[in-house]
Amino acid sequence: MKAVRLHGYHKQPVIDDVPEPAISGPLDVIVKIGGAGVCRTDLHIIEGQWAAAMGVELPYILGHENAGWVHETGSAVTNVAVGDTVILHPTPTCGLCRACRAGDDMHCENNSFPGLSTDGGMAEYLLTSARCCVKLDPSTRPQDVAALADAGITAYHAVRKAIPLLYPGTTAVIIGAGGLGHIGIQCLAALTATRIIVVDRNPDALKLAEQLGAQHSVVADGGQVDAVKELTGGQGAHVVFDFVAEQGAEMDGFAMTRPAGSYYVIGYGGEVHIPTLDIISTERNIIGNIVGTYNELAELMALAEGGRVTLHTRTYPLEAAADALADLDAGRVRGRAILVP
Amino acid sequence: MKAVRLHGYHKQPVIDDVPEPAISGPLDVIVKIGGAGVCRTDLHIIEGQWAAAMGVELPYILGHENAGWVHETGSAVTNVAVGDTVILHPTPTCGLCRACRAGDDMHCENNSFPGLSTDGGMAEYLLTSARCCVKLDPSTRPQDVAALADAGITAYHAVRKAIPLLYPGTTAVIIGAGGLGHIGIQCLAALTATRIIVVDRNPDALKLAEQLGAQHSVVADGGQVDAVKELTGGQGAHVVFDFVAEQGAEMDGFAMTRPAGSYYVIGYGGEVHIPTLDIISTERNIIGNIVGTYNELAELMALAEGGRVTLHTRTYPLEAAADALADLDAGRVRGRAILVP
Amino acid sequence: MKAVRLHGYHKQPVIDDVPEPAISGPLDVIVKIGGAGVCRTDLHIIEGQWAAAMGVELPYILGHENAGWVHETGSAVTNVAVGDTVILHPTPTCGLCRACRAGDDMHCENNSFPGLSTDGGMAEYLLTSARCCVKLDPSTRPQDVAALADAGITAYHAVRKAIPLLYPGTTAVIIGAGGLGHIGIQCLAALTATRIIVVDRNPDALKLAEQLGAQHSVVADGGQVDAVKELTGGQGAHVVFDFVAEQGAEMDGFAMTRPAGSYYVIGYGGEVHIPTLDIISTERNIIGNIVGTYNELAELMALAEGGRVTLHTRTYPLEAAADALADLDAGRVRGRAILVP
Amino acid sequence: MKAVRLHGYHKQPVIDDVPEPAISGPLDVIVKIGGAGVCRTDLHIIEGQWAAAMGVELPYILGHENAGWVHETGSAVTNVAVGDTVILHPTPTCGLCRACRAGDDMHCENNSFPGLSTDGGMAEYLLTSARCCVKLDPSTRPQDVAALADAGITAYHAVRKAIPLLYPGTTAVIIGAGGLGHIGIQCLAALTATRIIVVDRNPDALKLAEQLGAQHSVVADGGQVDAVKELTGGQGAHVVFDFVAEQGAEMDGFAMTRPAGSYYVIGYGGEVHIPTLDIISTERNIIGNIVGTYNELAELMALAEGGRVTLHTRTYPLEAAADALADLDAGRVRGRAILVP
Repeated sequence: MKAVRLHGYHKQPVIDDVPEPAISGPLDVIVKIGGAGVCRTDLHIIEGQWAAAMGVELPYILGHENAGWVHETGSAVTNVAVGDTVILHPTPTCGLCRACRAGDDMHCENNSFPGLSTDGGMAEYLLTSARCCVKLDPSTRPQDVAALADAGITAYHAVRKAIPLLYPGTTAVIIGAGGLGHIGIQCLAALTATRIIVVDRNPDALKLAEQLGAQHSVVADGGQVDAVKELTGGQGAHVVFDFVAEQGAEMDGFAMTRPAGSYYVIGYGGEVHIPTLDIISTERNIIGNIVGTYNELAELMALAEGGRVTLHTRTYPLEAAADALADLDAGRVRGRAILVP
Repeated sequence: MKAVRLHGYHKQPVIDDVPEPAISGPLDVIVKIGGAGVCRTDLHIIEGQWAAAMGVELPYILGHENAGWVHETGSAVTNVAVGDTVILHPTPTCGLCRACRAGDDMHCENNSFPGLSTDGGMAEYLLTSARCCVKLDPSTRPQDVAALADAGITAYHAVRKAIPLLYPGTTAVIIGAGGLGHIGIQCLAALTATRIIVVDRNPDALKLAEQLGAQHSVVADGGQVDAVKELTGGQGAHVVFDFVAEQGAEMDGFAMTRPAGSYYVIGYGGEVHIPTLDIISTERNIIGNIVGTYNELAELMALAEGGRVTLHTRTYPLEAAADALADLDAGRVRGRAILVP
Repeated sequence: MKAVRLHGYHKQPVIDDVPEPAISGPLDVIVKIGGAGVCRTDLHIIEGQWAAAMGVELPYILGHENAGWVHETGSAVTNVAVGDTVILHPTPTCGLCRACRAGDDMHCENNSFPGLSTDGGMAEYLLTSARCCVKLDPSTRPQDVAALADAGITAYHAVRKAIPLLYPGTTAVIIGAGGLGHIGIQCLAALTATRIIVVDRNPDALKLAEQLGAQHSVVADGGQVDAVKELTGGQGAHVVFDFVAEQGAEMDGFAMTRPAGSYYVIGYGGEVHIPTLDIISTERNIIGNIVGTYNELAELMALAEGGRVTLHTRTYPLEAAADALADLDAGRVRGRAILVP
Repeated sequence: MKAVRLHGYHKQPVIDDVPEPAISGPLDVIVKIGGAGVCRTDLHIIEGQWAAAMGVELPYILGHENAGWVHETGSAVTNVAVGDTVILHPTPTCGLCRACRAGDDMHCENNSFPGLSTDGGMAEYLLTSARCCVKLDPSTRPQDVAALADAGITAYHAVRKAIPLLYPGTTAVIIGAGGLGHIGIQCLAALTATRIIVVDRNPDALKLAEQLGAQHSVVADGGQVDAVKELTGGQGAHVVFDFVAEQGAEMDGFAMTRPAGSYYVIGYGGEVHIPTLDIISTERNIIGNIVGTYNELAELMALAEGGRVTLHTRTYPLEAAADALADLDAGRVRGRAILVP
């Protein structure tokens, strides 16, 4: 089969002809890929940022945001059957450790991360696990939803954790209205009645944000902290969701958070520098967020099927992976780039 | 009456003769002080660290950790009567703002902080509010419990917030087994079945910690992060309570926190420097903590009356305030110094 | 002033000329009534159902659902000023007991209930407390929102408690789409993405329910339990909100609740009969609900000001109270009847 | 192998010689039984009370409370190995449904219940699943802990759910200090600082209860509701745990619950009859409870290994199952009867 493989860091991945994956364990599932999202993390992988953390041997197949149809199943798989349309939770988990038994998939002691630590889904077929498969309405086109598998679940997870903090009369800030952020806005509007302020450098992104449910938009031109303060009676927001968390956004985010509020970190790349006196005197929190649980992906698909979350996508044939990556890197993708094998 | 007043920053407070406070509002209460705790924050006040934040005019009376007997009440006070033994929540609150109506006293929009922002309790009498008074068993000696009014409530508040995280089989770390920390250990032991590791530079403090319920003690001699990791299978603790949060403890504290765990900041003075990648890749949280609610103080008094939390104290006459401050500064106080007018 | 007073049980209240109320306590507030809701509970009061519980001496003024303008304030009132437009939380509270300090207004140890236990708001002026006043945008017409003061807060309180149970993909049932229920539907739609099934005997009420956000409606013609089961794959709903809870609805409600689900009782008049085996073998809960907190009323007003909750009302002059009560009793009121002095 | 099998309802089970179970699925585990608890539910099974619900074909092996050593494992089992000492969660689960993915084992859509719905553990070997095995310290004697597998987890689950309600200063009532109740008392004392009142007919059980941590004991001689009211200032308890829930205890339990409190049903056999007015006017809750989750069993074992929960047991050889059942039925067992093959 054809697959997009990385042969060396700081080099473009190439289209290789590789053997199809094969079932070996009883819970294995092979999925025929219908859509594979192209993510900023793929650029980071190519740059070698994840090399140390993941320790993967090159070459390997990229692609951690996948949807398609079940092609073959292991002997103990009972939740899906050949032909089912599925979206895939990004991390196959063991199902047996404390975290798995608590539903906390991201903290499985034995998980893998196809597309980061093993062969991913920018290919015709992907080897995954029964535990990753969320069954969809057969009429769903995988390419339309694939981006929910990683960008979507990550935004949803952060928003869902914050629901108890966002009762009517509160304010939430979203920093970064891009791939994740534009889903976050929709999740917030679907699950809370909080007032939404969106902060972004890009006026087009802000325009989209307002169409998706934001009440206020703020151009990140240097005065964004003051602008948020002004919109919140000088207090800041109850929750700030930072989908950027680099290049200064991470310090803005904490500064925009009101006393007793919480700053949710979702993006990465920067570094927070905060006096402990500032943390305790205002009793503010800094909350880490990573991907989400299997059930959260299923919930997000329920939102999507109900039309409450929709994606802006642009598709490319699998062979055009390099173009998609280049477009993403150059800021030419509005919404999400999707490879279709 | 006699009172310990600060006349200038970087100078010792002096014993002044000042007029007794008078009732002016319907919810005012005047308390005859039975015990006033001496706190490290008093040293910080003298050093001017709180001058900007509090904007108080000198001279004023120190003392934010007070217990005694009700001496006089305003016209609308119904919860206490003259002669009642009381411990005082440190911040009089308005009772009418959103935070007050949610029980979140520390975030009252209109609160004051006697001993920091207005005249405090290192005196014969203190003007406070009905909303601060927690009624005690008449046999309680105020000097025995006064330290619970600030050190106690602060430790209790942090521990109580963490209860849902500390189910059997988890590990908690307490950094700093001093005034607050030794109460925190007892609260943890009373309210959870978590395993407790205490980290401190002082071997005597560690000895006391073990008597109070800690299962493990670690000398903070440079190898404390590794020691905690070793005691936790390389993972770190589910919750780290940092009662120091300066001089490097604040970086240790985050490093000792396991993936999906939470680092509770209670002390202050240092600064955290954390890459956002470290926050998100492990989904760790940094949780601010400040004093506690009125109901939490009442709960803590229930623990104290049940013998589950006991204080180590050393009393000084009010006139010896300077000695008490000097002893505290020099590390000569084991437990808490209490002024008795 | 004119006031609607009850002189005897099982008799119609009459319009009396009575003295205006006067300020006596420092937190007292007198409100000029702009709208007073007429509630089924008023019919129950007239029938004597609350006589024993409230022990009020006749005659007294009815009306527990009030909004208007501040007319006079006690000496310690700081949160509102004369002329402010306000909606009133139904129960003045002491602000000092454990429940008040936790924000749990309905469980205040010293509260009163004007219109049930003391003179209420079907009059030109009402004596209430600063603690009841929620300040509104000056442009708000009290008669348009008065029904939120009791019907609204009660529906909102129950819905808000259930939010964590109603993630995307779940189903909620609302039994009774009348005064409270039609607000409950709007609150559910604003605060969750759950699927909403409404059950009512009245086809017109069901039509309104669908306009307000219900996905499914079920006529309560005897087959309602089966109909809900069919709509939920045989399982029942995750949460059932029962705004009727009499005449058999209370047994339907529990029967419509799925395993691990919760049956929220809001209406009253009936009696549940449930084998403990049915409770434990399915681990279902029965949840009591009564009015709501001050902050919840403020949150509901934020929803109303944002246009997320709107009321259907029909106004009557104060003198026509008897007509309004008769219309309500005869089922001739769609939405809520409001007296306007 | 030898096994205790039920051949007909209302007849004593007999010792049969049956084939040993065999591995068929990849997650199957065969456990050599070291201890099998004898439970009141076994008496109910013999009486046919569960015949309809479980629909099991006779004869089959009893025993749903089991511990032992891993004897053989399926091909995909990774969490335990042959020779490991294990205690078994009572219900093998699918691991793939929404409930399993949320850690909510008891609500698995595909679970079985060995000893109720399939062959159980009163035998030399038991077929179970990797998902049931909680690995223990190798030095643990299965017969000492087997009763925690069902009686223990059930008591623990209810107590754990109630922790947020039981802050210092609250009161909890435990009705029934028998097999489950005496574990419940220990869990409450380990996990909260609430005041514990125990209600039982049997003075010996009450004596044991006080040794295990109860502050007050009340003989259930008809005046038990009044006695609890008197001990709680006329209010009732914040939480009532009813381990009996039949023969009137179920009505006592609700009556002993204070306004805003919760009545936890754990036992079964009776029927609650409650006016909805009583539910709403006091905002009380009735909470169902069934067994517990896998992680809760692991947590309980951490408590047991720390000496915080200890069991009173009496062992019988497997062949003496009839004696054990007869002793239990006649009230001759103090603590729990355990069969040892």
